[in-house]
Amino acid sequence: MSVPALHDDRRIVLTLGCPDSVGIVARITGFIAENGGSIVEAGYHADAATGWFFTRQAIRASSVADGVDAFRAKFAGVAAEFGPETDWSVHDSGTPKRVVLLVSKEGHCLHDLLGRAAGGELPATIEAVIGNHTDLQRVVEAHGVRFHHVPFARDPAERGPAFDEVRELVDAHNPDAVVLARFMQVLPAELCEHWTGKAINIHHSFLPSFVGARPYHQAFARGVKLIGATCHYVTAELDAGPILEQDVIRVDHADEVRDFVRQGRDIEKLVLARGLRWHLEDRVLVHGGKTVVFS
Amino acid sequence: MSVPALHDDRRIVLTLGCPDSVGIVARITGFIAENGGSIVEAGYHADAATGWFFTRQAIRASSVADGVDAFRAKFAGVAAEFGPETDWSVHDSGTPKRVVLLVSKEGHCLHDLLGRAAGGELPATIEAVIGNHTDLQRVVEAHGVRFHHVPFARDPAERGPAFDEVRELVDAHNPDAVVLARFMQVLPAELCEHWTGKAINIHHSFLPSFVGARPYHQAFARGVKLIGATCHYVTAELDAGPILEQDVIRVDHADEVRDFVRQGRDIEKLVLARGLRWHLEDRVLVHGGKTVVFS
Amino acid sequence: MSVPALHDDRRIVLTLGCPDSVGIVARITGFIAENGGSIVEAGYHADAATGWFFTRQAIRASSVADGVDAFRAKFAGVAAEFGPETDWSVHDSGTPKRVVLLVSKEGHCLHDLLGRAAGGELPATIEAVIGNHTDLQRVVEAHGVRFHHVPFARDPAERGPAFDEVRELVDAHNPDAVVLARFMQVLPAELCEHWTGKAINIHHSFLPSFVGARPYHQAFARGVKLIGATCHYVTAELDAGPILEQDVIRVDHADEVRDFVRQGRDIEKLVLARGLRWHLEDRVLVHGGKTVVFS
Amino acid sequence: MSVPALHDDRRIVLTLGCPDSVGIVARITGFIAENGGSIVEAGYHADAATGWFFTRQAIRASSVADGVDAFRAKFAGVAAEFGPETDWSVHDSGTPKRVVLLVSKEGHCLHDLLGRAAGGELPATIEAVIGNHTDLQRVVEAHGVRFHHVPFARDPAERGPAFDEVRELVDAHNPDAVVLARFMQVLPAELCEHWTGKAINIHHSFLPSFVGARPYHQAFARGVKLIGATCHYVTAELDAGPILEQDVIRVDHADEVRDFVRQGRDIEKLVLARGLRWHLEDRVLVHGGKTVVFS
Repeated sequence: MSVPALHDDRRIVLTLGCPDSVGIVARITGFIAENGGSIVEAGYHADAATGWFFTRQAIRASSVADGVDAFRAKFAGVAAEFGPETDWSVHDSGTPKRVVLLVSKEGHCLHDLLGRAAGGELPATIEAVIGNHTDLQRVVEAHGVRFHHVPFARDPAERGPAFDEVRELVDAHNPDAVVLARFMQVLPAELCEHWTGKAINIHHSFLPSFVGARPYHQAFARGVKLIGATCHYVTAELDAGPILEQDVIRVDHADEVRDFVRQGRDIEKLVLARGLRWHLEDRVLVHGGKTVVFS
Repeated sequence: MSVPALHDDRRIVLTLGCPDSVGIVARITGFIAENGGSIVEAGYHADAATGWFFTRQAIRASSVADGVDAFRAKFAGVAAEFGPETDWSVHDSGTPKRVVLLVSKEGHCLHDLLGRAAGGELPATIEAVIGNHTDLQRVVEAHGVRFHHVPFARDPAERGPAFDEVRELVDAHNPDAVVLARFMQVLPAELCEHWTGKAINIHHSFLPSFVGARPYHQAFARGVKLIGATCHYVTAELDAGPILEQDVIRVDHADEVRDFVRQGRDIEKLVLARGLRWHLEDRVLVHGGKTVVFS
Repeated sequence: MSVPALHDDRRIVLTLGCPDSVGIVARITGFIAENGGSIVEAGYHADAATGWFFTRQAIRASSVADGVDAFRAKFAGVAAEFGPETDWSVHDSGTPKRVVLLVSKEGHCLHDLLGRAAGGELPATIEAVIGNHTDLQRVVEAHGVRFHHVPFARDPAERGPAFDEVRELVDAHNPDAVVLARFMQVLPAELCEHWTGKAINIHHSFLPSFVGARPYHQAFARGVKLIGATCHYVTAELDAGPILEQDVIRVDHADEVRDFVRQGRDIEKLVLARGLRWHLEDRVLVHGGKTVVFS
Repeated sequence: MSVPALHDDRRIVLTLGCPDSVGIVARITGFIAENGGSIVEAGYHADAATGWFFTRQAIRASSVADGVDAFRAKFAGVAAEFGPETDWSVHDSGTPKRVVLLVSKEGHCLHDLLGRAAGGELPATIEAVIGNHTDLQRVVEAHGVRFHHVPFARDPAERGPAFDEVRELVDAHNPDAVVLARFMQVLPAELCEHWTGKAINIHHSFLPSFVGARPYHQAFARGVKLIGATCHYVTAELDAGPILEQDVIRVDHADEVRDFVRQGRDIEKLVLARGLRWHLEDRVLVHGGKTVVFS
């Protein structure tokens, strides 16, 4: 699936997190200027609670004469000055990110992401969709995207081989993001570990409220006046990973659980699409179980 | 395209608007009770500005022993008591509403509505999609929906025959709603008249701000902090029809017009989907250029 | 403190909850019509989960020739037809509701409610403010409202006498609402019981997230992207009472706990003001630990 | 009126706007680092439409050994390098900003701002309130703030002397912000000019919809589904100045104009408070009739 250019300019995107100290910004922006870099967008955050510093710089690619690879190689020397814990990356937006989606039967998040990709709105290519059911196969293929069917055993204890197959299929695409688009299966701890920082889930509640199964039923029972959705990185602890994005929608006494389900879909779609977009544009830095999002 | 039942119950939906007076509610609900009708949902509005009364009653269909046709026939006598201006309808939700979509090249509203239909969420069948370009044909057909291509002349003065063809194609489906899903063509006055109360448009601004062409460019020039979308009935006066629904999304100085376009799509999709849903569920009563929406 | 009339008309407000059956609406609206009642606003809810029916009718007071007392007396006979569990009330909006506020040191909710009362916006009189500190006394008195200072012992085990004094002071005003406007004290179970259905609290989180102490600190630790506030009736179980209203506000990684505190105040003020208004206008019916709000 | 420290740290806040070119950020942050400055918060914006660059830097005051005056004096040399159009400022948050409020009879914005000031939430002192009526005098004085009464002639043509008196009273306080808190008087062009960049108005519509008088009546007539408020700098062209902040609130068919008025107040208060806060914290840079807001 090709990605039409919505933005007409390529960017070199630099992200960095390290212990804070005086002069980091000057050092980094000095380096960028020395390399001719024209900064189009910049985000900074000095975190008082942890003492860390975070930045994201988007640089007009055409302004860096030596190209992204030379830029990255040279920057490694700068990053080293900030200590061994420093976490950094340099990405060329001209090289599209790659996404694999995991789905089950419910198609709303899938339809939404396929529609965004078709409109050139997703800063990535959807490489493949893997489903434990075939309900969504036809539309996936109409969008020119490969669909893999991996059936799952009824007994959760026997799903190991299916997860192994999913892992192999996913990894074959070397994706930048593995999206659980209402996949409805809890990933084994070793898969969470294996895909740390790239597996993204959409949970249909405003976490930490209503962790686990049937959150809309839990919300209905409590009588809340807003329902929500949370996009988070997948970690071994259920629904406890770093939160990328959340939003809510108003409900009232006249709404039954099925109305929560229907209305909640609109928030799930939006929250997942926003979180995924930020992840793909290198806007999200993770530290201490929380995210810095330069949106 | 079939519509799976999200709601397990059929409803008889009664709507009525008439000059207000004491006792109307008692008369109507007395009639419903006499016919065994179990009211599931009810909306009332006494409009102080116009002196009109409006109601919508959703009745469990199975509770009305004589069936919807007999109910409607008997109710005609009741409605007549409220004067000649009375505007009323009785609809059986077991008979799905019918929708025709008009599109151009931009697919976001189309993808959204097709996804909702596929998920059983739209209280209607999408009978056909008519496009003045073929860009969206493939996905429409993958959803099992008929696509008609009607090319439009470059010269607006020569588009009469194309509009005639669109009118004929649309009317052949006898639709309850004709949705301009980013159709990008201004309907001739006689078509607006012909489809009064069923042609629905999505305009990409918070009307009455930014009427007409390129509203996102107008919004950018003014420096607004929110952009919006408006779902309205089409009338001969451009972007001036009764408003079904509106919403907004936050933007800031870092957003360029292309960002407005991208972010605005999410609001356009939601606002159109909500407005269309309310129209199809007989939740919208029009009076004096404004809507009463029993949402 | 006098309450200028924002609304020019007096209303008789009838509320009723009872087991659902066919014909209740017809019976009630028939009764209203027989008494000449002109219905200005009406809300209905048939609750599928509990099988109960709820309604609120606002009737133009001047249209009921016999007056509210006769109306109420006659309606008692109608209500009796719906069974012994029926819960109903008839209130004349010409008789202002009475409110007592409990406060501590933080004044934002208090200032907000005093401002609303001064603007004629609160459908009630503020009879008194009781504080366990004197910080807010001066402004309360500038608004012409009585302030009572009741010091609380440092040791929670020794606060019984103070709570007794608060109870006596509150009850002397025979209030329709006892508002814990950031009172910061957990009411003893017997006071919760004593003020059932009239004690209203504002909790500074989106319940059921972050029950108990320091919810903004809890929210910061979890890294949520929205913070919220919840207005609920006070019950013996902490922060678990029926929810009247909730709302949220967006935060991001740059916000520290003190920013949560500052921004959260705006949501606390709005959520409390809306919930209290609905309570005072008899828009809230409680059943099964949840609320029906005819807003 | 004293301002308790909500934030425990003093900041030196540097703002700058100039034609964009490579190396500006490096130059500025290099200068800050040379002076020992620890950057706590930073915002950048390169504006593609105008070719301008904007930044705001908040520096821990204690990290700049030489103090703010020396820092400012030295920075003047740096700013000069960016060309004669460069617009910059250096402010010490330890020197509180000064605000004068203009009011009429409606008190909701005034009460809100006084409450915020009392809670230590406003990053400024309220130096005085000037009213063309005395309705709000008592509460202003209870907050320890000076109230000036300046009566206005009924005939708009004869209000010149009153405006002269207002000007003199305001200027005597040398304020950083002159807030028209529902002042209801159109400032003469020369006063708009005189207070350019510091006179802030709250307009009760989502501009550019409903410019001028009685915007809620205009909104009601059009049948919009959201009403809004706009905080903007005052310019000679009515309601056309650079927008600081906007927001909206949902209304429906049941809301009359008086309900718009009541509900709109909540949005007016919030939008004014946010816009004013950003202005006082030097977060707003104006260029080409629009604002850059580093919120």
